[in-house]
Parts: sequence; structure tokens; C-alpha cells
Amino acid sequence: MLRTHTCGELRKEHVGTEVTLCGWVENRRDHGGAVFIDLRDRYGLTQVVIGPPEADAAQIDAAGHVPAESVILVRGKVAERLVGKTNEKLATGEIEVRCPELKVLNTCQTPPFTPSQADLPGEDLRLKYRFLDLRRPEMQRAMVLRSQIVKTMRDYFAEHNFIDVETPILGRSTPEGARDYLVPSRVHPGDFYALPQSPQLYKQILMVAGFDRYVQVAKCFRDEDLRADRQPEFTQLDLEMSFVDSDDIMGLIDGLVAKTAKEILGKDVTLPLPRMTYEEAMRRFGHDAPDLRFGMEIIDVTSVAQKTEFRVFRAVADSGNFVRGLRAVGAAEKYSRRQIDELTEFVKDFGAKGLAWFRVEEDGSLWSPIAKNFEQDHLAEIKSLMEGEPGDLLLFLADSWEVTCKGLNALRKRLGAELELYKPGDLHCSWVTEFPMFERDEETGRWVAMHHPFTAPLESDFDKLESDPKECRAQAYDLVINGSEAGGGTIRIHDQAIQSKVFELMDIDEATAEDRFGFLLNALRFGAPPHGGIALGIDRWVMLFAGLENIREVIAFPKTQKASDLMTEAPGQVDTTQLTELHLRTLAKKAD
Amino acid sequence: MLRTHTCGELRKEHVGTEVTLCGWVENRRDHGGAVFIDLRDRYGLTQVVIGPPEADAAQIDAAGHVPAESVILVRGKVAERLVGKTNEKLATGEIEVRCPELKVLNTCQTPPFTPSQADLPGEDLRLKYRFLDLRRPEMQRAMVLRSQIVKTMRDYFAEHNFIDVETPILGRSTPEGARDYLVPSRVHPGDFYALPQSPQLYKQILMVAGFDRYVQVAKCFRDEDLRADRQPEFTQLDLEMSFVDSDDIMGLIDGLVAKTAKEILGKDVTLPLPRMTYEEAMRRFGHDAPDLRFGMEIIDVTSVAQKTEFRVFRAVADSGNFVRGLRAVGAAEKYSRRQIDELTEFVKDFGAKGLAWFRVEEDGSLWSPIAKNFEQDHLAEIKSLMEGEPGDLLLFLADSWEVTCKGLNALRKRLGAELELYKPGDLHCSWVTEFPMFERDEETGRWVAMHHPFTAPLESDFDKLESDPKECRAQAYDLVINGSEAGGGTIRIHDQAIQSKVFELMDIDEATAEDRFGFLLNALRFGAPPHGGIALGIDRWVMLFAGLENIREVIAFPKTQKASDLMTEAPGQVDTTQLTELHLRTLAKKAD
Repeated sequence: MLRTHTCGELRKEHVGTEVTLCGWVENRRDHGGAVFIDLRDRYGLTQVVIGPPEADAAQIDAAGHVPAESVILVRGKVAERLVGKTNEKLATGEIEVRCPELKVLNTCQTPPFTPSQADLPGEDLRLKYRFLDLRRPEMQRAMVLRSQIVKTMRDYFAEHNFIDVETPILGRSTPEGARDYLVPSRVHPGDFYALPQSPQLYKQILMVAGFDRYVQVAKCFRDEDLRADRQPEFTQLDLEMSFVDSDDIMGLIDGLVAKTAKEILGKDVTLPLPRMTYEEAMRRFGHDAPDLRFGMEIIDVTSVAQKTEFRVFRAVADSGNFVRGLRAVGAAEKYSRRQIDELTEFVKDFGAKGLAWFRVEEDGSLWSPIAKNFEQDHLAEIKSLMEGEPGDLLLFLADSWEVTCKGLNALRKRLGAELELYKPGDLHCSWVTEFPMFERDEETGRWVAMHHPFTAPLESDFDKLESDPKECRAQAYDLVINGSEAGGGTIRIHDQAIQSKVFELMDIDEATAEDRFGFLLNALRFGAPPHGGIALGIDRWVMLFAGLENIREVIAFPKTQKASDLMTEAPGQVDTTQLTELHLRTLAKKAD
Repeated sequence: MLRTHTCGELRKEHVGTEVTLCGWVENRRDHGGAVFIDLRDRYGLTQVVIGPPEADAAQIDAAGHVPAESVILVRGKVAERLVGKTNEKLATGEIEVRCPELKVLNTCQTPPFTPSQADLPGEDLRLKYRFLDLRRPEMQRAMVLRSQIVKTMRDYFAEHNFIDVETPILGRSTPEGARDYLVPSRVHPGDFYALPQSPQLYKQILMVAGFDRYVQVAKCFRDEDLRADRQPEFTQLDLEMSFVDSDDIMGLIDGLVAKTAKEILGKDVTLPLPRMTYEEAMRRFGHDAPDLRFGMEIIDVTSVAQKTEFRVFRAVADSGNFVRGLRAVGAAEKYSRRQIDELTEFVKDFGAKGLAWFRVEEDGSLWSPIAKNFEQDHLAEIKSLMEGEPGDLLLFLADSWEVTCKGLNALRKRLGAELELYKPGDLHCSWVTEFPMFERDEETGRWVAMHHPFTAPLESDFDKLESDPKECRAQAYDLVINGSEAGGGTIRIHDQAIQSKVFELMDIDEATAEDRFGFLLNALRFGAPPHGGIALGIDRWVMLFAGLENIREVIAFPKTQKASDLMTEAPGQVDTTQLTELHLRTLAKKAD
């Protein structure tokens, strides 16, 4: 090694030692005939002094000209800092390294920004100069945290006897699900590989092959128009087990959550993690990944709406729809009329037609512009159902089940944040179970699998497969962390007859099923064990554990929402000869 | 869990315990009114007995009809086997589980082959039914070993403070090196991503970004016509370090080799691993990845050839070429004239025109059909140089340096195997260093980088970059295990001026360099530390540590030499709409 120590390593006990350090010039101060440099590497910062008596005037002058972010090597002696000059914020803050000179290993051109500057430029510029952006302490921390979380996961599954098996990246296109990324084959003209959307079929094959416990940190790919928190390639902790039921998988992941929280954040998590059914989650929180860092559950007041004279509530109740609301404790003073108008506009984005609200007054009465439309009895009943106390703000949507769910979920999340009902470091993990097997595709009206077509129904719902598909629940479970889906899995169908029934329901005929999933269906005929698994979104986990909100901050080389890499300028043009070898012609017209 | 124990777990101390086992029916014997089943899972085999008094006649009859490889569940009591009926080869061989009945979880259709059958069908059929093939104990062992080796590697680098960073799979095409796999972009018409041939550029960027120690188990891709031991996608343990020289990297990997050998094979490896230069390897073994499990070094007898009357040797020596040979100790009797004729044909495949040979007779004289062409003095000198002893066979090629290297390397490997000069379990690891920087491209006559264009020359050879490129040696090192290249790396150029000189030598002008590697060259301008790294071929490591010879035996779902996956039938056809979305048209004509 060119260095004897890192820049985060030296302490008081090293005083007097001859050391060699390498690193980046974070900061340089000319100060009383000496040059002070904050030398940085991944491990920390060390103050380096080039000054008398070690250095002569020429050496000091030279040190004064080294550009920021250059890479230098210094050799010198560790010295104690003068009284009053120590820096308690720095692990190395009690010492400095006094050197006769510095050796520039590599000069840095004037950078478009520096990693330590407070006012960062826009994300595009930072992505273009990602090698500078990654020098920022926040990015370094995120990458180290990611590495640690993945290691914690891998260790956990190794302790539990899982085998890490790599599945192919060059696979076969299956039109189910999202759009595939395709890879043209040179050897087989006109044929294409597809990049995997997940290792789903392969991991099921591994169970048929008897591997019992499979795990992989797997790259997955989806050619979708990107939302803010999606990337064209993303990483899953993917696993599958044989001879298990839902409880086994959830219990296993409970242990992982506790271990990760303990090792990464030093937090104790109580096990088992709370579980609620999909039905309960929608009823209490309006969403299948409820944020349980705070309460503020949805309360149904349709029973009052059915009796009231207030036209809007009454009409909704009469048509079989719902009036449901939230109680924002002590929020009456915090939200002015204008702010409530803003909330009204906000819920309209989720399909609501308006927002009804009441303030609970000092005397316990409900005040609202619409209060006059209600009989006192009904107001009292609303207050009682909502458990309203003086100072509370009560907010209601009157609409279909779906709109009240969507609108109140969004409103609840917003109020939770604005009212600071949870602290930044809070962590709440839970399970949502018993998802519906099917949902209607809005375009085609067909039943489609809510998870994927290999999901097993609850045994108690087997008969509903034919009689009442809408009510048929799946052996499915989602892990929810702080209101985000952090993983999801199912027990799979290992019985051919049930698989056929599911395909039938989804209007997938035998020939189509064979064409799409033939190799899996074939495998299921040769001794498939009962099996199930889960996939955890690693990018999401890291984001949640790091307390970050931008997924690109936890990926070393992310792509933009246009699926571009601004640093390498990928995707890019290729030679015509490359396309000819692949038996392809592009139809795109290029600007000159 | 559906089971209480695995099939490899029960011992004598469990006798009397009620257990539930799940697994595959490996074998079924009807025997004296009872059915004996060898129940298999990943962990072992357990004998299950369905017979009286636990089972009645109907239950016994039913058990007698369960097809092999079906998945069953049995619940019963652990019992000691009768004296004389124990099986010492089996960890569970002292017990059996006596059950009233079995529950079939899944019936297996008649399989095309069974995992336990001795005469396996051809590889194509096994690849098509990979889920059956993977049930073979050899395949299970290989996959478990692979998982363990990768875990050992990951742990090692975590202990050494490396950060595991994922680099992108959807990258940019760089025409250097092998052919890229391309991925058409839907969002950017006419543009393509490329799958990475290695994370080379990204890992150098990570060093510029200050990550200091990076490691990744990385999928890499090359669209080449496959040789027997190549796959279109393969896995590398890829790492990079800052502020290091060649010795640091080799020392680090030495530790990994020792740890892996100890943990996986229980073998002690003496460190440091032996090192030799490229020049020495070619001189002593004719190859840059010599198999050092045995000696039999190449010996140069050109000095004798220069004096002899034997026309063939003399002409070769006179033209500046070489006569070099091998001494096969005690092999004279083992190789008949006919077998030596075969060896002669064999070396012709490597460009040799013939094979000269001598037998060392009992009396110490050399016998050969060509011996009469030599003066006795010269024969004695040859014998002395070769250190020939009675019973030895001496074999010679007279040709160019390259042909003698290639031919004698091949001959040496063949003789080493045929003469059993090493044992199947032997492991020999070493380093070859100081590779030439450049080699001539035979087609274009241009200098090309032997490793890659970012490799740093030896500091002592800086001046040869201009004066004598052929003699310029690189800071490059290859890890050799049992005569296979098991990894290779270099110290990189971190100095722009030297990088420019290297590009110049390779006839890569500035614009081309910018176009191909612009983002790396740009990064090098903003404070690049001295850095270097290595990539280890994981498929190769697993093969070597497992003692296997077919790379497809260490990959769960490999591709054939035609780059096809016979199980999933990838690559396959895709819908025209998919191509249209990608702005592509295929030029391939499909057979109907």
C-alpha cells in the first residue's frame, strides 16, 4: 500500500509516529505561513500541515497551489493539535500530520462542483459527473449502508441453510406482466432473449429440482415508463422454499427484519411483526401498504349519513357508497380555511368530488360551513364515532369505496407528515395478507392475477375459484415498511388441476399457457413439492433504512426517468455492422 | 413447515420420536409384505417402511403404487433397523421411519431419466429436463459448493473492508474487446444499451469516486462463438483497490486462495503463492498458465543443434529458431512406436512439423531412428542437458519459439495426464506476472493491448513505450490454478499523459478514444488515485475446486454451445408488436 494509515485512523496515541497518507484535498487554508489541508478518503478526514519547521518556504508555497479534489500523498509525523485547535466533530480532531511537503499523485481540473459544497447543483449535472457526486459523504454513506444491508441479508439466509443460486440474465420472453427488455440473438437469426423481470420461473424450477431453500440477490428488468421511484434495472432479494406455508415465510422474514434493524440501525423490533388482512388494511387505512408509524385510522360514518338530511352524505349512502373520515387530533388550529381548501384540491387528485370537514369546538360542538345541514343528534353521533375531542379536525369523503380509500389514504399520509405524527428515524414493519387472487383488467374486463398466475388460493377458498373468483383470496403476503411495499410473495400452486383452473379463469387457454410457461408447467408434472417464496426490493429497503426519499441516491449508477445514464451516455448508437450481424434494421430516423 | 425433520437428520437418538418427513421417492422396494421407500431431499436419504403392524393391507398396497420421483409426506415413528439391515454408507443408516401410510403431495409422470440412474442420457436431454438433472447428487453438490465458494469470497472481502457495489447491466457499447450483446431502447429510437463484458470502466470510476475498495460478484456477457468452457453469460468476482501496487493485489488474493482451499477443501496452501514472470513461464513451460502440479519443464538444446550434423536440427538452429524438449521420466516403456506416432500427429495440431525423440537405454545410450545422424558427443550433450536417465523418453520440437511453446505445452499437459504425474485432488496455485503490454494484431499489424488499454506499464519500462513497445512489460498478473487461468488483473494507468501515449501506440486517435471511453478519460482528469484490481472467474474456480471438467456442471441453467437454453427454449420468437415498439425490423427469414 502506498499509505501506512487511512485518513480516518489516526488518534492521540499515534503522536510521534511517522505516517504516509493518501487522499483527496477537501479543503486548503493558507494560515500564518503554513498550509493546512483537510485530507479526505472513504474513512475520514485528517488535517495535514505543511509549514515550518518541517517545510521550507518553497515547499509551503507549492502546497499552497494544489487544486481542491487533487489526489496527494503526504509523509510526516503525527502531532498533537494545539490547545483550542482541536475539532471534536472529527474522529481525528485531536491530531494533525506535519509534513515537509506533499506529492501530487493526480491533479484535479476545476470541477463543476465539489463534494463538500452546501448548495448542490441539479441532479442532471451530478449524474453526469457521478464520480464527483459519489464523493459526497451522503452518497458514500448510502453505498456503504447498501453493502452492509445486503451482507446482513446474505449472512442471514446462509445461517438458515439457503443456497445462493444464480439464474440466467439471458432468458426467454414471457408476455405476462410488464414489457420485456429484449436481446437479439446473432446465432439464431430473428430470435430474441429477454432480460428477466424476476427469477420467478427459475426459482420454482429450483424447488422442483429439490434445492429446498434458494436465495439470490437478483437483477431484474422492466421496460416501463418510469415513475419517480422506479428504475429500468432493479435489485431483489429473491428466495423460495419448499414444504412451507405463508407463516413459515413471514416468520423467516420477521427474523431478517429484526436482524437488519438491530445490526444496521441498532433498533429492537418486536416479533412477530403485526399482520393484517388486505380487507382490514383497506378498511382501516384505505391502502394495502399502510403507514403504521402513526394511527389516524379511517372511520366509517355511513350509518349516520343514511339518516342525515345533508343531501350530499345522504345521496352517497343511499346509492350504496360510503362516507368515511379521519380524525386529525388537535389539528383544528393548525389548518386555516385556506389550508383546508388546499386539502380539498389535494383529494380531488384522487377522484374525490369534495372534502367535508368539522372542527370540534371548545364546548364540544362540531363547527363547519355544512354543520347547519345536520340535526344535532347526528352531529353528536358523528363526533362520537370519530371520538372527537375539542381542537380536533374531522375530515370526510363521501364516495365509492375505492375513492374513499384512495383519497383518505393520501390525505392520511399528508396529514401524518404535516402534523409530524412520526419521527424521521421511526421504523414500522408489518404484513398485509390474504390479497384477492384476481382483479378485473379495466381495459379487457378479464380477470388477471393480482400477484402472478402461479399464486395459490387459500385452501378455504378453493371452491370460490369457480363460484366467486372476486372473493377468492390468495396465499399472498406483502411486507410493509413505513407505508411502502418492501417485499411481496406467495405460496405457489403445485397442483396441476388448480393451475389449470386458474388459467381458465384468466382466459388463458391450454395452448397459450404451454407457449408462455410450458417449461414450468412441464416441471410441475415431474414431482413438484409444495413451495412458496418472497422477493424483497433491495433499493427500497436501503432507501427506507437510510431514511432517503430518492431511489437514485441508493444506486451507484442510476438511470434517469428517460432510462438514460447521463455519465456514460447510454443508450447510444452502434455501428451498422453490429446490427447486420444481429439480422436487424432500425426503423428510427436519426437527426443529423 | 410441513415436515419436522429433513431426510438427512434422523439418528439412533431419535428412535421412538414421532416425525413427519417430506421428500422424493428415490427408490421403492416391495419386500415381504412391506413397502420400503428411500425418501430423498437435499439433506439426505431416509428409509421409510410402510408395513405391518402400522399399516394395513390396503395402505401397503397403495404405497406400492407410488411412482418414483413423486413427492410424498409421511408421518411415523423412528425405529432402529434390525441387526444386519443397517447401512453404514448412509448418515441415517441406523434407523428407519415406520409409517401407517404415505400422502402423495405430487405424482411424478414417468421421467425420461431418474437422478439416481447409472447410465445417464446425453447432455441435451439432461439440459431439457434440467429440473430432473439438478436432482442428481453430483449437481446438488456442485451447486452447494458454488454457493459456499461465493460466500467464502464475499466474507473474505467484507473482512478486508471492501464495499459491494452493483454496477449497471444496461450499459454502453464499447467496441473494444469481444462482441457486445445489445439491448434496443424503446424510449430512444435507434439507440442501444450493451450488456457489460466486465464492470471494468465502472470500477475504475468507483476508485475515482473514492470508494477505495470495491468488490462485486458480477455477471458479464460476451457474444462470442463459444468454446467448450465458455458461456455467453459468466460470473466474475470483480474487485478494485486504490493506492496499491501489484504486490498488494496478489497478496490479498493469496489470502483468499488459502482461505478457500482451507474452508472448501480442508487443504493448507503455503503462502505467498509462487510467482514467475511471463517470460519465465513461456521459457520453462511454453504457456502463460502453466500447470505446476508436476514438473517436466521445457529444456532448450538449441546449443547442441547448432553443432550437430542432423540436418533438421541444424537448419532450425541456423535460422534462429529453437530445438526444445521434454524429459518424460521412465516413460520409454510406456510409449510404443505406434503411440509415439500418435504423439507426433498430436503436436502437428499445434503447428509442429514433427516430433524428434530418444529413448535412454539401460546402458545410458540414446536410441532413436534418428540417433545415427548425431555424433556421440552431441548425443551425450543432449542427454546431459535433459538430465536423461535409463528408461526416460526424450521428446523434441524444432521450430519457431511460438510453435515450440504451443506444441510442448500441449505435449506436456497430455503426458502429465497420461503418466499420472498428479493426483485428481491436487491443487496448485501460482502467479504469472509482467505480461507484455502489447501484442501485434495478426490481421491489421497494429499493436493491441494484451490485457486492456488502461493497463499501466512497469515503471522501469516507461521509456520503452516509445522506444521498444514489444519489450514493454505491464503491471499485470494472472492467477493460475492447475494450469488454468483463474483470474487476471492489472494496475491501471492513472496518469493522462501515459494513457495518451498508450492510445497513440495503438493507433487510437483522440477523437476515437473520447468516443469510446470518454467518460472514463473525463473521470481521470478529476482526481484519479493510483489503482488496480483483478477479476476472478467464478465458474472456473468452482470447476477447479469441484474437480469437474464441464463448465455446464457448475451453472444451474447453462446455455449450449449454440447459446441456447434447451429447457426454456431461449432465445425465442417475439411478437411483431414488441419489435415495432423497439423501432426494429428483423431481416431474418423464418422457416414455416
